Amino acid sequence: MPAPAFRMRSFGLTNVTVQDAFWSARLAANREATLPIEYQQCRKTGRLKAWKLGWKPGKGKPPHIFWDSDAAKWIEACGYSLAVHPDRKLERLVDRVIDDIAAAQQADGYLNIYFTAVEPEGRWTNLRDRHELYCAGHLMEAAVAYYQATGKRKLLDVLCRYADHIDETFGRGKGKKRGYPGHEEIELALVKLYHATDEPRYLRLAKYFVDERGRQPHYYTREAKARGDDPMKYWPGTYEYNQSHLPVREQSAVVGHAVRAFYLYAGMADVAAETGDAELLAACKRLWADATERKMYLTGGVGPSGRNEGFTRTFDLPNETAYAETCAAIALVFFAHRMTEIEADARYADVMERALHNGTISGVSADGKRFFYTNPLTAAPPETYSHIRPGEPFRREWFGCACCPPNIARMIAEFPQYVCSAARSAAYVHLYVASEARAEIAGRNVTLTQQTDYPWDGAVRITVSTDRPGVFALMLRIPGWCRKHTLKVNGKRTAARVTKGYAKLRRTWADGDVVELSLDMPIERIAAHPSVLEDVGKVALQRGPIVYCLEQCDHAADVLTVHLPDRAKLTARFDPKLLGGVTVIEGEGLVPSPAGWAGKLYRPAKELKLQPTRIRAVPYCLWDNRTPGAMTVWLPRR
Amino acid sequence: MPAPAFRMRSFGLTNVTVQDAFWSARLAANREATLPIEYQQCRKTGRLKAWKLGWKPGKGKPPHIFWDSDAAKWIEACGYSLAVHPDRKLERLVDRVIDDIAAAQQADGYLNIYFTAVEPEGRWTNLRDRHELYCAGHLMEAAVAYYQATGKRKLLDVLCRYADHIDETFGRGKGKKRGYPGHEEIELALVKLYHATDEPRYLRLAKYFVDERGRQPHYYTREAKARGDDPMKYWPGTYEYNQSHLPVREQSAVVGHAVRAFYLYAGMADVAAETGDAELLAACKRLWADATERKMYLTGGVGPSGRNEGFTRTFDLPNETAYAETCAAIALVFFAHRMTEIEADARYADVMERALHNGTISGVSADGKRFFYTNPLTAAPPETYSHIRPGEPFRREWFGCACCPPNIARMIAEFPQYVCSAARSAAYVHLYVASEARAEIAGRNVTLTQQTDYPWDGAVRITVSTDRPGVFALMLRIPGWCRKHTLKVNGKRTAARVTKGYAKLRRTWADGDVVELSLDMPIERIAAHPSVLEDVGKVALQRGPIVYCLEQCDHAADVLTVHLPDRAKLTARFDPKLLGGVTVIEGEGLVPSPAGWAGKLYRPAKELKLQPTRIRAVPYCLWDNRTPGAMTVWLPRR
Repeated sequence: MPAPAFRMRSFGLTNVTVQDAFWSARLAANREATLPIEYQQCRKTGRLKAWKLGWKPGKGKPPHIFWDSDAAKWIEACGYSLAVHPDRKLERLVDRVIDDIAAAQQADGYLNIYFTAVEPEGRWTNLRDRHELYCAGHLMEAAVAYYQATGKRKLLDVLCRYADHIDETFGRGKGKKRGYPGHEEIELALVKLYHATDEPRYLRLAKYFVDERGRQPHYYTREAKARGDDPMKYWPGTYEYNQSHLPVREQSAVVGHAVRAFYLYAGMADVAAETGDAELLAACKRLWADATERKMYLTGGVGPSGRNEGFTRTFDLPNETAYAETCAAIALVFFAHRMTEIEADARYADVMERALHNGTISGVSADGKRFFYTNPLTAAPPETYSHIRPGEPFRREWFGCACCPPNIARMIAEFPQYVCSAARSAAYVHLYVASEARAEIAGRNVTLTQQTDYPWDGAVRITVSTDRPGVFALMLRIPGWCRKHTLKVNGKRTAARVTKGYAKLRRTWADGDVVELSLDMPIERIAAHPSVLEDVGKVALQRGPIVYCLEQCDHAADVLTVHLPDRAKLTARFDPKLLGGVTVIEGEGLVPSPAGWAGKLYRPAKELKLQPTRIRAVPYCLWDNRTPGAMTVWLPRR
Repeated sequence: MPAPAFRMRSFGLTNVTVQDAFWSARLAANREATLPIEYQQCRKTGRLKAWKLGWKPGKGKPPHIFWDSDAAKWIEACGYSLAVHPDRKLERLVDRVIDDIAAAQQADGYLNIYFTAVEPEGRWTNLRDRHELYCAGHLMEAAVAYYQATGKRKLLDVLCRYADHIDETFGRGKGKKRGYPGHEEIELALVKLYHATDEPRYLRLAKYFVDERGRQPHYYTREAKARGDDPMKYWPGTYEYNQSHLPVREQSAVVGHAVRAFYLYAGMADVAAETGDAELLAACKRLWADATERKMYLTGGVGPSGRNEGFTRTFDLPNETAYAETCAAIALVFFAHRMTEIEADARYADVMERALHNGTISGVSADGKRFFYTNPLTAAPPETYSHIRPGEPFRREWFGCACCPPNIARMIAEFPQYVCSAARSAAYVHLYVASEARAEIAGRNVTLTQQTDYPWDGAVRITVSTDRPGVFALMLRIPGWCRKHTLKVNGKRTAARVTKGYAKLRRTWADGDVVELSLDMPIERIAAHPSVLEDVGKVALQRGPIVYCLEQCDHAADVLTVHLPDRAKLTARFDPKLLGGVTVIEGEGLVPSPAGWAGKLYRPAKELKLQPTRIRAVPYCLWDNRTPGAMTVWLPRR
């Protein structure tokens, strides 16, 4: 088995200019609404002021142990946004927050609000529960993003000092703690810091955190005893919760807290590729298979249970109570992107596309102003929720635990980097989106200009621009959802071999060459694996990468009672006025007739009559942007 | 509107001898297994010893605030059992427990383990939460049952003294507390005590508790303040939890904790009938309609949510997470029986029959040894439950909160009294069961002997025996599930008018007259009201009063994936060897073919092939008597 490595790297954020309607609108809302709102919310809730370390006993509630990460993700998102869209005013705001963060750093490099201002004696005594290394990781990601966007080193230097301190504190060396994060994240962050600084210690530290995890004697057991706590009194009852139940190389099942899991797997993939570790990569592939073949919602959401914000059992994918945290789907995208670039296999990019177009961006409203923490696939009417039946799944302006809003902001801001990757003599197109993407391929400066109405239409025209003709392969992803495609080069039908999901067009490319890819994009009725109990007897609608749902506001009948006949004709229609312009799916469903039900709760089934009703399905990612109401993705078949 | 009253009264427990297979087996298991087991469990867990009032600080966990009621319900059950089946050994056991209870009574008549042994200063300070009056009520029911069974007055006298004490403590008189129970139960118990003693004060006290409930200024608010507690910090967030959000006469919606609700409604019905209170009866009828037309499982289970052990919203009837506490279905039977006797309307008896044959007796295993607290309509495979996904719905030997086991014991023991009721010149047959039932009707000693294989067969032969011929009406319930019936008297087809669900046969009855009732009992596919979201697109199987389910142990295919085609032929077959002899329903269902699913979680629905599979449905009330496994009542239609 050859040592794994990244077979390609992203064209890079600043080298891809998105010019479409779908993603451009998201990027604009993110920049114009989400980032300012998040700044205000962080300010209003004390998250920014907390960096002043001014909390004293008696001064109200102490800052929360992971407030650091909220500011960090906001800075990271600002970094990506500033990289493609300079904004002096925003940059000044960020600089001021960075000044406070830098001032909060201790003489030894340590940097954490809670454990400096509130409980200094508790530093590094509870890695299992207290998020110190998690916060450190997010700050590192912020520092790298902001440095790459602005060239400003201040935060990067602060985080290097902090990383050095962490490196001196943790590891296998004498006198070091053998700990690792209870909430993974720092692993992938350290790999970013390594790339930004060329400091190999950071990669080694990432590898240490990955490899130390789950070893016996178990660090969290020893750590709990050292605190005087009973290690058995760990609330989730199992180290599966944070994936430390086994050394990571021995893991095959996706378990525990979903965000932790996928941050870890992304970090494992990074370390595997950077260090050429085939065994570690094999674990990543096993975990990938378990996640995507048994534990993922149609939307790319992951982690069905609110109880552990994570996984329960194989094929447990309840719709209404789906937790499917926005952060978890984002973490899945991170993992998928890394696996795509390591494996050059479109099945990873298929999942990335699925999560990007559905279960991640559902997490923020179209106007960028309101958020989902959980992303259920069924919602009951608002009036049916109460303190007895909590979990009202409608958009909110903020959360006490506000991890998701800044996370979706950074994911959207960095979206352009997911579009294309460059290998030595190949350009990979993973995502179809009207855009201009620039990279050096086979020594040529190449620009790929996509013209397309994707995701509403499967026709993609790619114009190749190059400073001089050159031989390289254009690798075009044929999405897993597509059953028929055609390819033309300069107007001539071309048969390209599809290898691991990519159609390979290797030739001498000259400036102005045009590739026309046509992806057949019918409306599909999708069935879930028969073991997904909630979806037995049901279908969902998907067209291209877009998963659809029925919202109450488009229907007179109760959408939760709509049946879809197998033979019902369904039509796709672009509606330029709806939700900023979307393709809707329309047709005739069936709903129970109310006749004869007065005063009756149960009747012979033969008395239940179904009557036709017009249905209109809209993209799931845009639900709850109008009047809050019932919603469902899965419809009973008739 | 005429003043309400009971239009009939039960033939009485000792006047009905059950001789069938279905109920006799339950009565025997109850007597031979359940009652001894419950005694042992109460002993083992300290529930009996607690009556010695020996708890002292530092002596381990104090007795629980409602342990009194566990012993009380066991005594009550023993009373009913002893009444029809004398057992000196059992009687001696009960006598000894009664000695301890009597010795625990305080000089002023007060009687409660917790508030005597543990927190005497807390007596009557927290009616809202602490179950004192609830425990008192259960002890009263026990006292009456045991007195009626054995003629022994000891416990009855103790409870009269306690009732007197409660009467002196609560009421509208000067210096009295204006309180009422946080957990209703004492209302119906006081009416029983009134009948056993002819003491009208007990009826008046019951009426006071009913009428005082929910008045403003709210007693629980004042009581909380008096304790120094914040009344707003009531965990359920609403007085709906214990039905004190409104005066009961103004209530129309079934809300809150389900057992509390139906004990209250039963008490309201008692008071309405005993006092001729039409307004109160109207409230009972409104609440009945809300319960049975919008909030009841097909099994007669009630209260969908574990969060409040009760009601959430209209039509919220989830199957897998159904709480449907055994006690709540029992309480519904109590309410239904009272309404049947007040209204002489079979729709009340229909629900009584439904709950009796399904959602109540599901609560105890066929051998009488293991119990359900909750009665879901779907169970996932045992291995899929964990601390992350709790609620494993399989039978257990006991519960920390053990209200259900002695409750089902008392209900089964008193089952014979639900069969027939006597009016002045009419005998009502509510339930069909092979039995001999004796009563005085129109001055005659009448015996009704039912020969039938009900609930497996709809043919019922009733022989009337009488000491001398007399004119009276035989009122035979035509069950709501029955769409066709025929009647013969002495071999001759007779057309009887069906009034409020009872076929009326009024004639001069002579000794040896024979009535043959034939109730058409086909297999029915039942649909739920379209607003019951969990059951959209699904059907359940019912035959006669019996609701069926599919259990994993009868199937090779995953039962949770079985679809039922509308056209599938279903056959009923009596299997004498299965589960003590039951009628099973057999036929051909469809299950998804596993072909093509390897490594796939979602596929185009047209690729999902269904393949035939033999199905066998068994009575829901007998599920989980074999190998624990998945179970479902509702099946997707095809």
